[in-house]
Amino acid sequence: MIRIALDAMGGDNAPQVEVEGAVLALRELPPTFRIQLVGRTADIEATLKKQGELDRSRLDIVEAPQVVGMGEKPLAAVKSKPGSSIAVGLGLQKKHASDAFISAGNTGAVMAAATLLLRLHHGVQRAAIAAAFPTAAHPVVVIDGGANVDCDARELVNFAHLGSVYARDVLGRPEPGVGLLNVGEEDEKGNAVVKETHQLLKAARSVHYLGNVEGRDILAGACKRGRIDVVVCDGFVGNAILKFYESAGRMFAEMLQSALPDVVTRPEVKRLFKFLDYSEYGGAPLLGVRGVAIICHGASPARAIMSAVRVAAQMVQSNLNQDIGAEFARGGAVA
Amino acid sequence: MIRIALDAMGGDNAPQVEVEGAVLALRELPPTFRIQLVGRTADIEATLKKQGELDRSRLDIVEAPQVVGMGEKPLAAVKSKPGSSIAVGLGLQKKHASDAFISAGNTGAVMAAATLLLRLHHGVQRAAIAAAFPTAAHPVVVIDGGANVDCDARELVNFAHLGSVYARDVLGRPEPGVGLLNVGEEDEKGNAVVKETHQLLKAARSVHYLGNVEGRDILAGACKRGRIDVVVCDGFVGNAILKFYESAGRMFAEMLQSALPDVVTRPEVKRLFKFLDYSEYGGAPLLGVRGVAIICHGASPARAIMSAVRVAAQMVQSNLNQDIGAEFARGGAVA
Repeated sequence: MIRIALDAMGGDNAPQVEVEGAVLALRELPPTFRIQLVGRTADIEATLKKQGELDRSRLDIVEAPQVVGMGEKPLAAVKSKPGSSIAVGLGLQKKHASDAFISAGNTGAVMAAATLLLRLHHGVQRAAIAAAFPTAAHPVVVIDGGANVDCDARELVNFAHLGSVYARDVLGRPEPGVGLLNVGEEDEKGNAVVKETHQLLKAARSVHYLGNVEGRDILAGACKRGRIDVVVCDGFVGNAILKFYESAGRMFAEMLQSALPDVVTRPEVKRLFKFLDYSEYGGAPLLGVRGVAIICHGASPARAIMSAVRVAAQMVQSNLNQDIGAEFARGGAVA
Repeated sequence: MIRIALDAMGGDNAPQVEVEGAVLALRELPPTFRIQLVGRTADIEATLKKQGELDRSRLDIVEAPQVVGMGEKPLAAVKSKPGSSIAVGLGLQKKHASDAFISAGNTGAVMAAATLLLRLHHGVQRAAIAAAFPTAAHPVVVIDGGANVDCDARELVNFAHLGSVYARDVLGRPEPGVGLLNVGEEDEKGNAVVKETHQLLKAARSVHYLGNVEGRDILAGACKRGRIDVVVCDGFVGNAILKFYESAGRMFAEMLQSALPDVVTRPEVKRLFKFLDYSEYGGAPLLGVRGVAIICHGASPARAIMSAVRVAAQMVQSNLNQDIGAEFARGGAVA
């Protein structure tokens, strides 16, 4: 039985949404996991009471008296609040009392706490967020989705390895194609870091490197050299594009609704709206730490929390964490 | 009469598309301008012959025997080909024989030639591409859209000034709101360059600075502090988001077409498709040079060339170039 710790105090509407998400996950997903709601027990119990009849045999509550606010400085918050839901929830994995952690709270604090408490795999310089972009074809993993706003070439090469293992284990791509986000496909394009990364990736042994790709290639899921499964970029660019994409989907859905009010109830239009709604997608895993950590949007609704639970279970089942360790241990991942 | 030089040899389908775009512009836009088609006269004449009956009273041909290829290294190409359509076309402005230049050719070569031949306004470190993003509300100018892949804080501050004058003169925004693209709105967010830029912009006198904005705020056209008219970022990020957006519009249009084949002929759906089709939008101006230069996509269709002609005429009519010179001359633009 997989044990998934869920930060009950994290999101903009905590603990309401987190508790609802946990209840949804327990009701709708295959029963391969149990959920550990981490936070203020009294608040969690009060919210659970409002959920109606509930089988609590796969639901635990783990007390964590402190809460890290969205505006708090990550490292300071993690160090000064050892009793926060983030620190306690990740601490469970360290004690082998849990297999995964999910939070819609302060992203920086989750990253800092995961790096401090779980530590990084040997050979990994920094953890990165793997954001799966929905496309018309297959989801494409953009890494880093926002963990690191300044990256050097070695870190970007690391991201290529982390993303490849994730695409293999969780998305079922046997030989994931990796592109490096750039302003053009030619060798000489890009800033100094990206040019250096391009050369390192061309020489990397265990990455199926397709070369430079452009912003338009992400949603195409392909470039001239093949199918794209993973796109590598620094967290500044990845975060900007990720947030931009969410807003584009929302804008398009609104335009469609106002242009065609009579067709919005059709099932094929509902499917389209579902595709365009980022809240349908679960959180993004933080890769590179020794463990499983998933970061959700602060504004995540309950369905997104449920999706994150499903992804967390997949990550544990597929041995992603061990496979990342093995990838870096055998030196294939060192540029 | 405004004189607009059009690089006839530039785009992926030159000179066919450029000639068609010129003919469309002469037929459909208000007759405030004449067009100077720059390139190999024989090729241009042969293509013109295929356009049917045509009043050539506002159409000139300017011979330029050389062509810069899409794959050529910009600076080397500009220096080794003084007879290229890019160098000749921009040279006309230097000789006061033209008021604007449009090219769908090698972007880097146009930038290099514009900077070398026209020179930069005093106080401007580097020219930048101002890309107008269509949104549900009002177009938002993203600057830099791809001219500079590495920027320091002073350059980003320059872009804020350039974008503000453009939004005032060409988009008719009396007091343009400027946001700095970042991964979050708080002061401490971002990489070192962006943090420094944020502080400089807070102190800038002639910029209506709204603070840090996120990827999602671009299409919203607004943040908590007000309406966004201009978003400042380096050209690496700007280029990635610009190309991503084009592809998102294309993907949405294709999904809509396949989900609702029976409604695509409705006028409100046609309007939606038109909105999503980047080819409807003209090129992006290169701001900061002493003159008017517009860069179009290599794949621009004739309608995009026509749109670029309209924008070029607006830029000349509004005295944008002089106003940028004045903004930097009075020191308001120096951080």
